[in-house]
Amino acid sequence: MVRAGAPDDPTVSTPTERLSRQLAFLTECDRLKGVRRTTYLHDGSRPENSAEHSWHLALMALLGGLPPGTDRSRVTALLLVHDLVEIHAGDTHFDATPEALARQADQEAQAARTLFGRLPADQAASLRGLWEEFEAQRTPDARYARALDALQPMLLTWGPGGRGCTDRHPELTAERLLALKRPRLEAYPDLWALAQQVVTDAVRAGLLPTAPVTAGMKLRLSP
Amino acid sequence: MVRAGAPDDPTVSTPTERLSRQLAFLTECDRLKGVRRTTYLHDGSRPENSAEHSWHLALMALLGGLPPGTDRSRVTALLLVHDLVEIHAGDTHFDATPEALARQADQEAQAARTLFGRLPADQAASLRGLWEEFEAQRTPDARYARALDALQPMLLTWGPGGRGCTDRHPELTAERLLALKRPRLEAYPDLWALAQQVVTDAVRAGLLPTAPVTAGMKLRLSP
Repeated sequence: MVRAGAPDDPTVSTPTERLSRQLAFLTECDRLKGVRRTTYLHDGSRPENSAEHSWHLALMALLGGLPPGTDRSRVTALLLVHDLVEIHAGDTHFDATPEALARQADQEAQAARTLFGRLPADQAASLRGLWEEFEAQRTPDARYARALDALQPMLLTWGPGGRGCTDRHPELTAERLLALKRPRLEAYPDLWALAQQVVTDAVRAGLLPTAPVTAGMKLRLSP
Repeated sequence: MVRAGAPDDPTVSTPTERLSRQLAFLTECDRLKGVRRTTYLHDGSRPENSAEHSWHLALMALLGGLPPGTDRSRVTALLLVHDLVEIHAGDTHFDATPEALARQADQEAQAARTLFGRLPADQAASLRGLWEEFEAQRTPDARYARALDALQPMLLTWGPGGRGCTDRHPELTAERLLALKRPRLEAYPDLWALAQQVVTDAVRAGLLPTAPVTAGMKLRLSP
């Protein structure tokens, strides 16, 4: 049962109330600009935040041909909202344990109720639906959006002029990276070819080891 | 005449060349995350950058009813690319002189040639077309996108919980702010009503003066 004044109250319908709720939602969303990702900007100067990351993904969706059965405006909408729940739940590491991922999923479901509940009921349902679609990964739009989300950090870190991340993630090898990305990218031959090319170039440039870098290795390299 | 290898060379058509050009463009676009705006985040912690600003605008375009004659996916696309040329040309102050604005327009036209020229010719034309449409302000989509662009900094600065900007812009009064925003917002009754409400609330909360704040005023208030 919905109580009057509850966040998902469907009786909120006057224009003023709608605007006031949208305003509360939009100012709260500003906090996504303060959620730090593990990926650094291309110039290595600082960690990327989830708001600018979402913009970069939506820009990628504007470029080039989308796979058959996908719709550009829906892919874009999915990308714009896919990280919003991190405002309350934070970001996860690319290599998180299954337990950490399960905990994160619980926190994100709670965060979705709080955040989208700020909106008038119809808009809450619409935006929450986009977030759930991205999470469920059952539609072609959601899978393609997730593929762009998997590719973008690779472009920042190892794309032309990139600096790698061996200092922050010495355990990350070319093989491990491709194994992590393959399930997201393999269905899209262009994206998967690009990912493999980026990794090949990064290994050649010495930005990505093919075996883990350890303090021991450095010692062995000393004369 | 287009020389082979020039940035707008239409002969670039192999999949590998296309991907390589898109990659160069996308990594260059990362620099928009380093372009500082005059607006601060809602929590006042730092200036907003143009990439996260573009995301916030695209999120606003997802919400609520768009005016008749506008298309949500086109408005979103305009918002995603509208600030890209700032990578090379920088942002302008909300209150810049006509001379500064003319200089900025020249720099942005040059920046557009450089930046969009990184892409394969068909995509360069498409993204450059979006940027030109936004700048020209002749279509309903471009005008509505520009209205959101005018409203968003108001929400960050004076929306519920906002901190105002009297410390940074003591010359800015409620009257001046509304005079600056009116040409962009007046055609959209909901947005204009919201802007006026935000200003009224900010004046009441002491976050926006109705007359310029000067050192003299502070002296006069002393006993």
